[in-house]
Amino acid sequence: MDAGHTPSTGRVPGIVISVDAMGGDLGPGVVVEGMAQSAARYADIRFIVHGDEGVLSPLIAKRRGLAAICDIRHTDLSVSMDEKPSHVMRHGKGTSMWQAIDAVKNDEATVAVSCGNTGALMAVSMLRLRKLPGVNRPAIAIYWPSKNPQGFNVVLDVGADIRAEPADLLQFALMGASYARNGQDLSRPRLGLLNVGTEEHKGRTELHEAYELIQAAAEPNGFEFVGFVEGSDIPTDNVDVIVTDGFTGNIALKTAEGTASFVRGMLNEAFRYTWFSRIGALFAFTSLRRLGVRIDPRRVNGGVFLGLNGTVVKSHGAADATGVSAAIGLAFHLAEGGFTKKLAARVASARQEREDTPTSTSEG
Amino acid sequence: MDAGHTPSTGRVPGIVISVDAMGGDLGPGVVVEGMAQSAARYADIRFIVHGDEGVLSPLIAKRRGLAAICDIRHTDLSVSMDEKPSHVMRHGKGTSMWQAIDAVKNDEATVAVSCGNTGALMAVSMLRLRKLPGVNRPAIAIYWPSKNPQGFNVVLDVGADIRAEPADLLQFALMGASYARNGQDLSRPRLGLLNVGTEEHKGRTELHEAYELIQAAAEPNGFEFVGFVEGSDIPTDNVDVIVTDGFTGNIALKTAEGTASFVRGMLNEAFRYTWFSRIGALFAFTSLRRLGVRIDPRRVNGGVFLGLNGTVVKSHGAADATGVSAAIGLAFHLAEGGFTKKLAARVASARQEREDTPTSTSEG
Repeated sequence: MDAGHTPSTGRVPGIVISVDAMGGDLGPGVVVEGMAQSAARYADIRFIVHGDEGVLSPLIAKRRGLAAICDIRHTDLSVSMDEKPSHVMRHGKGTSMWQAIDAVKNDEATVAVSCGNTGALMAVSMLRLRKLPGVNRPAIAIYWPSKNPQGFNVVLDVGADIRAEPADLLQFALMGASYARNGQDLSRPRLGLLNVGTEEHKGRTELHEAYELIQAAAEPNGFEFVGFVEGSDIPTDNVDVIVTDGFTGNIALKTAEGTASFVRGMLNEAFRYTWFSRIGALFAFTSLRRLGVRIDPRRVNGGVFLGLNGTVVKSHGAADATGVSAAIGLAFHLAEGGFTKKLAARVASARQEREDTPTSTSEG
Repeated sequence: MDAGHTPSTGRVPGIVISVDAMGGDLGPGVVVEGMAQSAARYADIRFIVHGDEGVLSPLIAKRRGLAAICDIRHTDLSVSMDEKPSHVMRHGKGTSMWQAIDAVKNDEATVAVSCGNTGALMAVSMLRLRKLPGVNRPAIAIYWPSKNPQGFNVVLDVGADIRAEPADLLQFALMGASYARNGQDLSRPRLGLLNVGTEEHKGRTELHEAYELIQAAAEPNGFEFVGFVEGSDIPTDNVDVIVTDGFTGNIALKTAEGTASFVRGMLNEAFRYTWFSRIGALFAFTSLRRLGVRIDPRRVNGGVFLGLNGTVVKSHGAADATGVSAAIGLAFHLAEGGFTKKLAARVASARQEREDTPTSTSEG
């Protein structure tokens, strides 16, 4: 690395994002391209980039002005997409993923971004950043396209853990509300608990317990609890944040992706069916493209790990440059607003409240 | 009832469907219209119709030839859409729903159809028909639009019960495979178990136990087990039958409905956006309508209750005549093929096999 590439991090003021450049299916090329797109958008963004310097340096040098805001941290090691989380926890030290998390742990960067495999990234994040005091299970929160003016609802957990106790669901509610407040500028998000019916007697016992806990926490924590919601409510404007366990959330997310892709396939088929419909598609091209952008999964790329001492954004493994840039943009937005500290304060204060409340007067 | 309305049931040979004409949001008018549509399609269909004769007789008399194949069983009582299942079990005797089930119990009809509320219908069905020997939990199976040549995959349980043990999931697999074999004429259906990943180590412990049970049952029961599948696989042609517990299945179903409705809304918006796109929509009208028919939820109307001594088809509460006719058509198809008996035989033989297998040689 020559003098022209001197890292600006820690010297030039700015918001530092730590990037694992070796994760993802498409290689470091799309990651660097995504960084360049984000750099063009956010004037004071800075990067610490982890990966093979011999590969990264030329890629970064090619983008005008990018080298000046990048601090490359060389490593030969990386985590593959199918490596088991337990293996990475034991042997992952020194990989680009591990280093990317450590830069947040060491306060060199505010948020880490990786396209690497979700299980490994969560395992390393938990190991290195540790859970926030009072949080038993971290969660992965995503933006879900919706009819709301903000364009998206927050859904969590979509797969950090396959179980959640009522107390975990309460934590998810606090964290999800905080995420919507900070990520989407909603002053008083409306929050729902996912169930198989909206009537209070329906669903599993754990959900009824969680219902009581969340209802009691709503007022003091500045969100509105709308009660149980169903799968069909997720993309609506009845609610801003949907809370569920990671098993159910992951099934819902993938079912929605499958459905959208099925409908898209049918639509393309419909348009190819006759000459008339092909002409129709031509006329409607711009509007259809607008629809495509609106429901483009790349634009909502970025699952956020909540409940740790530090914020980590997981970009989709198959993300292209636009997708990576969306994940980096999300990381930047959260870092800029001081999200990590605000979330920690929210969780700590809710914990204090519960400890201050004598059990005898508690109504559940 | 005058002589012209003499019931043909039991005298004229035919396949008798027992219809609860008072369930549903839209009233008996659409039910009778749906019956008329089905009568036009199936020459040897016969009905026993339960409900208010004063309302039903004139509606039926209006449809040419319908009265001759209908046996009206009068009752003043009906189950409302929001009545609790437990209440209906205690006080539902004599309602049109109860009578509709009893006609199957008494062997007067082969399959019962109701648009009434799901919880109540399942409760009454379990109470009157009783579970098949060896079945612990009945399940609701539906047709899910898919890329498969048959146009649909079978998904169960979508909401009969909120829990399922590994042994229940095995029963669902046997029943789902039997349903696909008889309802969709698939000689060797491919069956998957819904999970959050396709790798064998992923997901809940119960699912790993169920995996072993289903794998062992596949060969002797004439289906192919493809292993774990994800939410995104449900509408694909990788699989014909998807097995899950009723909580997860219900969330998946409603999430898919919500997603499809969201995309439809966005599409309509896109087509209205500019004059160009409106012209485009005009050109593509026929093809889009063909797409609409393909994913029209009314065409796949009919959840089938499996695991009871008798088959019950639950039509959507908001079903119009086309929807009711689809549910009746499904009931007719199943009745015609002797599905109830075949399913019972399948469950009984699998049970026998397990009892015959010494535990010591069993591999799990």
